[in-house]
Amino acid sequence: MANYPEFKNVTTVACVGVGTIGGGWAAYFLSRGLRVQAWDPSPDAEDKLRALIDAAWPALTALGLSQGADKDNFTVHADLAEAVAGVGFVQESAPEVLELKQDLLARLAAATAEDVVIGSSTSGYGMTEMAITAADPSRLVVGHPFNPPYLIPLVEVVGGEATDKKATEWASGWYDYIGKSVITMEREIPGFIANRLQEALWREALHMVDNGEATVEQIDTAITEGPGLRWPLQGPMLTFHLAGGQGGMKHMLDHFGPSLKSPWTRLEAPELTAKLSQDVIDGCNEEAHGRSINELIAQRDAGIIAIRQAMAGLSAAAAVPAP
Amino acid sequence: MANYPEFKNVTTVACVGVGTIGGGWAAYFLSRGLRVQAWDPSPDAEDKLRALIDAAWPALTALGLSQGADKDNFTVHADLAEAVAGVGFVQESAPEVLELKQDLLARLAAATAEDVVIGSSTSGYGMTEMAITAADPSRLVVGHPFNPPYLIPLVEVVGGEATDKKATEWASGWYDYIGKSVITMEREIPGFIANRLQEALWREALHMVDNGEATVEQIDTAITEGPGLRWPLQGPMLTFHLAGGQGGMKHMLDHFGPSLKSPWTRLEAPELTAKLSQDVIDGCNEEAHGRSINELIAQRDAGIIAIRQAMAGLSAAAAVPAP
Repeated sequence: MANYPEFKNVTTVACVGVGTIGGGWAAYFLSRGLRVQAWDPSPDAEDKLRALIDAAWPALTALGLSQGADKDNFTVHADLAEAVAGVGFVQESAPEVLELKQDLLARLAAATAEDVVIGSSTSGYGMTEMAITAADPSRLVVGHPFNPPYLIPLVEVVGGEATDKKATEWASGWYDYIGKSVITMEREIPGFIANRLQEALWREALHMVDNGEATVEQIDTAITEGPGLRWPLQGPMLTFHLAGGQGGMKHMLDHFGPSLKSPWTRLEAPELTAKLSQDVIDGCNEEAHGRSINELIAQRDAGIIAIRQAMAGLSAAAAVPAP
Repeated sequence: MANYPEFKNVTTVACVGVGTIGGGWAAYFLSRGLRVQAWDPSPDAEDKLRALIDAAWPALTALGLSQGADKDNFTVHADLAEAVAGVGFVQESAPEVLELKQDLLARLAAATAEDVVIGSSTSGYGMTEMAITAADPSRLVVGHPFNPPYLIPLVEVVGGEATDKKATEWASGWYDYIGKSVITMEREIPGFIANRLQEALWREALHMVDNGEATVEQIDTAITEGPGLRWPLQGPMLTFHLAGGQGGMKHMLDHFGPSLKSPWTRLEAPELTAKLSQDVIDGCNEEAHGRSINELIAQRDAGIIAIRQAMAGLSAAAAVPAP
């Protein structure tokens, strides 16, 4: 098995495909002080990439650039092998077409040294199916970002059946090293984690519009003025941990578990077995890291206030006419 | 039909039931400069209510108090008729037990004048079923808040079959007048809107834990570090409007519509008919209120930056040891 590089020795990365996602990745890598070598088959790739980086740079500057970050520190190559020559990592962000991804990933694996990990931005495919034509699939890993990749920290990392476990570990460590928030999944499942959750909500919303139960704007208002205000700080599990009062998730499941039988959405809930209950309770306690319910409530309230103040500040700024 | 009062003439309101939700409502009403008369059967109701108000007051102060707001401007009554005497509005927040709600709402309707609207905080029942024992159900309306009611603006308003349409309208106007964000629903559906959406996500999350596909902490991280960062600013519909690039929701549905057939969640999507597509596209355009895709992207990015900065500020504050 390969010896993957130390993170600090990776100074140049390749971005393969520079649409919205790939260009967003490029901007992010540049903001971390890395050099970017890009490849994209479109004739105006360089202009498009420059425009994407220019658009993202003010946001990246506001969040803080790494030392040596330079938005011009990139080159665009017509030749794939040239684009990946000498890089320490590759991020593939080609269109979501399976055959295209399979072909490209096989070519990338062939064109890179045996210690170069290749992350794919795919939102829909598993690496097992994408890697089937690669001679060496051991370094191919899914590294699924969220749009826009230069602002949303989440990256979901999962290998395929033929991926070296150490390559998956390396990818998770690398994304973390450059400042992303990483979830390393043990199993390939369609939609990974965040998209499955988001998609369940979205499908229920489509059903509601389809049945005349809510308008598009009511659905958005229900989230932005409601549970959405809690979610940047505490996810759905910790949110319900607090809904149980001082008894936390255990009290919540004991008292509101029966409501899982209610037709509150078209998605049926799983049977709330003793094991599932205990898993959820234990998970909440672990995630709380010793914080009491009262401490979590205080953090939630401080978070909602900060978010509401930030939103009010933006509205006030938007209401000021441009000079 | 009754002539409901002008909003500015409502200076005293009743809070019936002062648990977490009712107490949160009381704190919110006080922060708006209103006088509160509370009723609760528990012997230590006054102490409990005072503790809830004291806990909420710093947050309410941070968000801005109305003129004349006074956290001591409440009384607690052992007699229900006394608690609602002379009030201009009643918020009922009793436990979620149908018979108890039916009985209490009937008594409240009997004890109040014919121009006093009574809002119920129920999260699970429709007003049609809750109002069946009331002699005059015309002023009984659901006004469903989110926890904590003093911080989350959303209130979902929906009447029952016997509710006067003007009472529902009045309730929506009243909640809006005191600073809440109101959704007025045309139809009673289980879970209203926000809970249906939140519950779909939660049920998918439970399935994932049940199947060992994700841990509790991974589910929360997937939201807080991912789509959750967009949701205080733009709901799921506008979020996907932007996922379509310059073509907006139309492009999104044309290109990603087929992914609704993918097993990305256990909830099956509705058939994406031409009518449903058009309804969603039209809804997004209406909600955008003339803002171009680029303007919406700029607002989204500014929002995510503001939220991330606010979250970073909170973490930094939490890391500072208390003096």
